[in-house]
Amino acid sequence: MAKFDIKKIEEAYNLIKSKIVKTPLVTNDYINKITGGNIFFKLENFQLTGSFKFRGAFNKIKKLSKDEKRKGIIAYSSGNHAQAVAYAAQLNKISSKIVMPINAPKIKISNTKKYGADIVLYDPEKEKRETIGRELSKKENKTLIKPYDDYDIISGQGTAGLEIVSQLNKININPDLYVCCCGGGGLIAGTSSYLKYNYPNISIYSAEPEWFDDTKKSLEKGRIINNLPGHKTICDALLAPCPGFLTFPINKLTLTSGLVVTEEEVKKTIITIAENLKIIVEPGGVVAAAAVIFKKINVRNKNVVVMISGGNIDFEIFSKL
Amino acid sequence: MAKFDIKKIEEAYNLIKSKIVKTPLVTNDYINKITGGNIFFKLENFQLTGSFKFRGAFNKIKKLSKDEKRKGIIAYSSGNHAQAVAYAAQLNKISSKIVMPINAPKIKISNTKKYGADIVLYDPEKEKRETIGRELSKKENKTLIKPYDDYDIISGQGTAGLEIVSQLNKININPDLYVCCCGGGGLIAGTSSYLKYNYPNISIYSAEPEWFDDTKKSLEKGRIINNLPGHKTICDALLAPCPGFLTFPINKLTLTSGLVVTEEEVKKTIITIAENLKIIVEPGGVVAAAAVIFKKINVRNKNVVVMISGGNIDFEIFSKL
Repeated sequence: MAKFDIKKIEEAYNLIKSKIVKTPLVTNDYINKITGGNIFFKLENFQLTGSFKFRGAFNKIKKLSKDEKRKGIIAYSSGNHAQAVAYAAQLNKISSKIVMPINAPKIKISNTKKYGADIVLYDPEKEKRETIGRELSKKENKTLIKPYDDYDIISGQGTAGLEIVSQLNKININPDLYVCCCGGGGLIAGTSSYLKYNYPNISIYSAEPEWFDDTKKSLEKGRIINNLPGHKTICDALLAPCPGFLTFPINKLTLTSGLVVTEEEVKKTIITIAENLKIIVEPGGVVAAAAVIFKKINVRNKNVVVMISGGNIDFEIFSKL
Repeated sequence: MAKFDIKKIEEAYNLIKSKIVKTPLVTNDYINKITGGNIFFKLENFQLTGSFKFRGAFNKIKKLSKDEKRKGIIAYSSGNHAQAVAYAAQLNKISSKIVMPINAPKIKISNTKKYGADIVLYDPEKEKRETIGRELSKKENKTLIKPYDDYDIISGQGTAGLEIVSQLNKININPDLYVCCCGGGGLIAGTSSYLKYNYPNISIYSAEPEWFDDTKKSLEKGRIINNLPGHKTICDALLAPCPGFLTFPINKLTLTSGLVVTEEEVKKTIITIAENLKIIVEPGGVVAAAAVIFKKINVRNKNVVVMISGGNIDFEIFSKL
């Protein structure tokens, strides 16, 4: 495909801006000191429903036809997309049914219920959520809201990039690097397109947990590569088995390469961020920060935008860390 | 005294704005829903050193003479003022000595050390920090940086109010109410002066923990009333024994009245704020939010600014909650 049309992101922004949170872009003396760079964190843990996912879900749902809205929607998600779809549906007075794995973080399941969705639990070791979602969608004649392989979702997530550009303009900063977590690749596809359009010389890196570095591998091979099965990660938000069919062709054009962090680095970064930025981040939300703090790339004297994508962590797990 | 001259706050802002964090002003759907108001939280837990105290300390220290800077400074504080003074001194290449109680939160003592200050510990059950501070200051010929009873400190804290006004202007909001925590009263004196000047009809409330409601009582009596001795609170940042001699006359003019919250309400609010705003706040930092969430005033359909003043909580305590 050709470059992603950033007008779609601007259209999405105009559609959703009155409702979404313009999340802060913040810097921190201590983290700048330990990394040697000027790090700007985009705090999507402050977005409605606690992650960037609300942007895409709200854009997609607002654009449904009257008839589609009347029939209701369906989605599958380990949690952040689930909450986002449920809340976006509630705001638009649409019924929603969400397919979630039985081992999803409790906070994500209970929040999704709180937003009024019907929950269908499944066992991820025995069933595939895509299949359940597709079948339910057909049977009940509801629109399936995919988590990333949808141009309206990608455009919605891209609005975080639009905000970053406007926030950097205000402080006269030109970014050298952008690092963003990557599951199915919707957030990085949308935001990287907008940033690359505005800063053609920027270098952009995906960040993934070990064993789930399908985007890194796919970028290296130039084609979609699946993760090897049989591995686990605490980054429950980044479990997509491979890059998306719509997101990967975009990311192939905008990304420089992929970075990988260990579980231990993710855990330590959650603590560093909590102690210094005073914010609560979830494991998947912090992989880009971990890549920078643990020096997977050289950021010395560089202006670096780092995406913090979500904050929906079970309090028991947070306390243990 | 007459009204506090808001030009002093604007001067302070011009002096410190290149270094301080312009902290976010955020709103949250869930908290608006449970309170019935439009609540705007000013997040000073994001300020350098984790609390608003940096604003005043940096303003004060920048204004010292060359000779005073050379001789060094001294301060007493249970923690947030300590860290702020230590870091502001470090940035200005000035030596600092800080008098802290032995039972101060570990995070506050270790951070103060990290910023290069000499720490003098004392036992708050046997000694008075004001006396130790005054004597050390005389003996060592160092300038004492008071925590609130100093117009340069009040002006510095007031810059948070200046930011609030500029942030509300951008979203075309006129606030009806402002609620702010209150220890010695420096933050509320500075910010309330700036807000009252810009919004003459605003109602302003101090928020204090039970048994430490000296400002509430003093406002009722119209003169400075001390807290009764022998009580404890988890709000270690709000232990001042009585309103300041400089701050109280200002607050008498700007405040409507005082609100009081219980320990239990403070603890519950820390959790509510963590779960929904995804931020880490300390007990003293959250009393204004507790007053609003536990409906000590009617906020229904009102635009309400709530100060979150700091985030320096020991992780053990946070985890227990």
